[in-house]
Amino acid sequence: MQRVLNSETQQLIDQKVKVAGWVNSRRDHGKLVFLDLRDRSGILQVVCSSELAKDVKDEFVLEVEGVVQERPKAMINPALKTGEIELKAEKVSVLAKADSLPFDLKELNLSLPTLLDWRPLTLRNPKVKAIFKVQEQVVESFRRALKEMDFTEFQPPTIVASATEGGAELFPIQYYKYKAYLAQSPQLYKQILVGVFERVFAVTKAYRAEPSVTTRHISEYISLDAEMGFINAWEELMDTCAIVVKKIFYDLQKSCQEELKMFNVDLREVGENIPRLKISQAQRIIFERTGRDNTNVPDLTPEDEREICQFAKEKHESELIFITHFPTKKRPFYTQPDPDGSDYTLSFDLLFRGVEIVTGGQRIHEYEKLLKNIKKFGFSQGAFKFYLQAFQYGMPPEGGFCMGAERMTKQILGLENVKEAGLFPRDMERIDQRLSASLQKETKKPRAKRRVLKRRKKKK
Amino acid sequence: MQRVLNSETQQLIDQKVKVAGWVNSRRDHGKLVFLDLRDRSGILQVVCSSELAKDVKDEFVLEVEGVVQERPKAMINPALKTGEIELKAEKVSVLAKADSLPFDLKELNLSLPTLLDWRPLTLRNPKVKAIFKVQEQVVESFRRALKEMDFTEFQPPTIVASATEGGAELFPIQYYKYKAYLAQSPQLYKQILVGVFERVFAVTKAYRAEPSVTTRHISEYISLDAEMGFINAWEELMDTCAIVVKKIFYDLQKSCQEELKMFNVDLREVGENIPRLKISQAQRIIFERTGRDNTNVPDLTPEDEREICQFAKEKHESELIFITHFPTKKRPFYTQPDPDGSDYTLSFDLLFRGVEIVTGGQRIHEYEKLLKNIKKFGFSQGAFKFYLQAFQYGMPPEGGFCMGAERMTKQILGLENVKEAGLFPRDMERIDQRLSASLQKETKKPRAKRRVLKRRKKKK
Repeated sequence: MQRVLNSETQQLIDQKVKVAGWVNSRRDHGKLVFLDLRDRSGILQVVCSSELAKDVKDEFVLEVEGVVQERPKAMINPALKTGEIELKAEKVSVLAKADSLPFDLKELNLSLPTLLDWRPLTLRNPKVKAIFKVQEQVVESFRRALKEMDFTEFQPPTIVASATEGGAELFPIQYYKYKAYLAQSPQLYKQILVGVFERVFAVTKAYRAEPSVTTRHISEYISLDAEMGFINAWEELMDTCAIVVKKIFYDLQKSCQEELKMFNVDLREVGENIPRLKISQAQRIIFERTGRDNTNVPDLTPEDEREICQFAKEKHESELIFITHFPTKKRPFYTQPDPDGSDYTLSFDLLFRGVEIVTGGQRIHEYEKLLKNIKKFGFSQGAFKFYLQAFQYGMPPEGGFCMGAERMTKQILGLENVKEAGLFPRDMERIDQRLSASLQKETKKPRAKRRVLKRRKKKK
Repeated sequence: MQRVLNSETQQLIDQKVKVAGWVNSRRDHGKLVFLDLRDRSGILQVVCSSELAKDVKDEFVLEVEGVVQERPKAMINPALKTGEIELKAEKVSVLAKADSLPFDLKELNLSLPTLLDWRPLTLRNPKVKAIFKVQEQVVESFRRALKEMDFTEFQPPTIVASATEGGAELFPIQYYKYKAYLAQSPQLYKQILVGVFERVFAVTKAYRAEPSVTTRHISEYISLDAEMGFINAWEELMDTCAIVVKKIFYDLQKSCQEELKMFNVDLREVGENIPRLKISQAQRIIFERTGRDNTNVPDLTPEDEREICQFAKEKHESELIFITHFPTKKRPFYTQPDPDGSDYTLSFDLLFRGVEIVTGGQRIHEYEKLLKNIKKFGFSQGAFKFYLQAFQYGMPPEGGFCMGAERMTKQILGLENVKEAGLFPRDMERIDQRLSASLQKETKKPRAKRRVLKRRKKKK
């Protein structure tokens, strides 16, 4: 007999079927036992004799044969997709047993340490699982939106030879007899590939050795990166970014209704027209609204980000807002300066509900200008020799943007900590298990460590 | 004026258009200059006055306005998609200049060192670029085939805490004050997620510190991984694998015709029914065909792989063949043994044109059995504590398979070296630039290195 999914049983009333899944819960009512059976499509109520359900406990994996029947009116559960039916079990086979659970897996507000210490288990919690169905859709919509605009997908390398971009911290690797690093972004590779495919994107891993524990950092994250050439105006980058982000929201609203509902999230009112403000304009508005004068700060503070989003919502009915023209010193060396000669750049951030979710801008595509800027930023041209080939041999005006899938997921679902949006999040203290508690030992390399620390300091 | 793509000009005869791209070649004919302009859609012939094309050289990035006209009959080029038309230029703008090329970029058989030393440039060669359009389709078809079968896509972590699986070599990372490693496969994570989503797949990076330079190895590769639960028979894994691989071939034949043609590749005759042979049967057949007795060898030699593919083609009209039931000692600890009690496993390789392209099998899903096998293989259960949670709390019968996108691409296109199928391939001697020639210095950590070497020896 072929297995059917729980969600398919609704169409099979009075028929004999076979289903399979995990015991989500067990309720004993005298001679009858009610099992909620969970499979990838949802939950189905199974009614067993106590004999058939003997020894069956939570998280046991079962195969159940039986007849689908309508529930008595009083027993209908509108919260369940299969709430109008149940399966009257005739045969129950145990595919795998489970130990007694160390905590209540159905608890909706598990603490972060429990969520992470028991990840293989807590991911089975429907609300936790929903986070990663949403994340899958974020990634897929990013991909589809760009494919529809004729972008080529590529897989950038993650082992890099030198600490090129500056700014963020790097993890060193022992690469055969050499020292190498984990890439902090696929930036240089996506730019190189504009010279090949014109429009490219990647779903890739990026790594940041941030020596701090915050609600916004994970060491390894999913970077969604896009880059495009032959732009006529740098605003086209924001246009493209807006198409991508709107598709993500549109698709989520369509395909992840149930998941969004679990988090009380509605994305229908996010806004059609995304306002665009220069950072200097934004700071003036914030000053006028709050009396807080940050007009001399080269970036928006977290407080400012929240305030300007509030402004966008009130004045433009948009939960999204582009902030543009960040100062040169706050952006990487490859950022195109504003041609007006000021100390600002053709760069942007996209803010959503108080937090930056996308960052992007036009790049310097002129070889000589790029050479000069590398020098100006204090980097060695030799370290960029490979990257520079792309510009030495003809690169059109180009730019792009990137977003972190975990932060995007966190912000969409209103999670408190980005680690909740990491499938197996890595931080200073954790790779799956807590590092201090695991078999890991401190590497006894004081000399090497000192060298790494020194480099970090220099870069700051 | 809006830019149109070169491929769109065919529909715009006698109209004024703007195109943009790179100068693929320049041919001077007295007062006229013929430029082949290359954009992401292909090549277009542009006819200029020598005045308009003054100073224009190969790989310059141009924007050209002009009128599309039919070519004189004698000048039609059937090799070109736009071979029946040309653009009569009225205005030529140089978007970016290019230095004189260090070699002939149109050369179809560039040497491997040139291909890699000048990667940002050589990727522009249409035949090289075609490799990565094929690879993009391989990845996309893998993804689509599995999504159609209700698999969930996930992004596995690549930083891992310990050297778990054994076999392949690992790259150590300095992870804050701890030592960590680059994952050699997402195996343990995809198994954990069967407990959550039942069916999962990933397109991810995997890392192998193979201290050898061969035509088959790269240090960082694209792993296409799938895993599924609730299988009734382990043969379902081969069925699923066959669906995926056939979709890859089918889609390539449909969407990458031009690219396949460049490599004289035809995938239409790959075969409908893929034969399945136990390794012991295969070895007997090879013995009968060649007199080579490898029936006591626990794996197929490269010579044997070629011979059994030849057999499959002759006897079964298939260029694909499944080899099954590899000995326990040749497969990882989590491989399900054959229930017949022999020393063979429920595992398979899929061979294509003489080389293994997929490997897979059923896993041990029973917690106690898995514990025993970890011990039997000489590993510490503590190192697997996190992974084991998934099995301790109920896991259905499950299995999966994986393939390397670069090797798949190499084998499909008949490339000589897998590095040709790596976008920016990393090996013992190269991360973009040759390591010995770059700014890299040997890390002076003899003590640390000795320790790594010692661990490697123990594992062998």
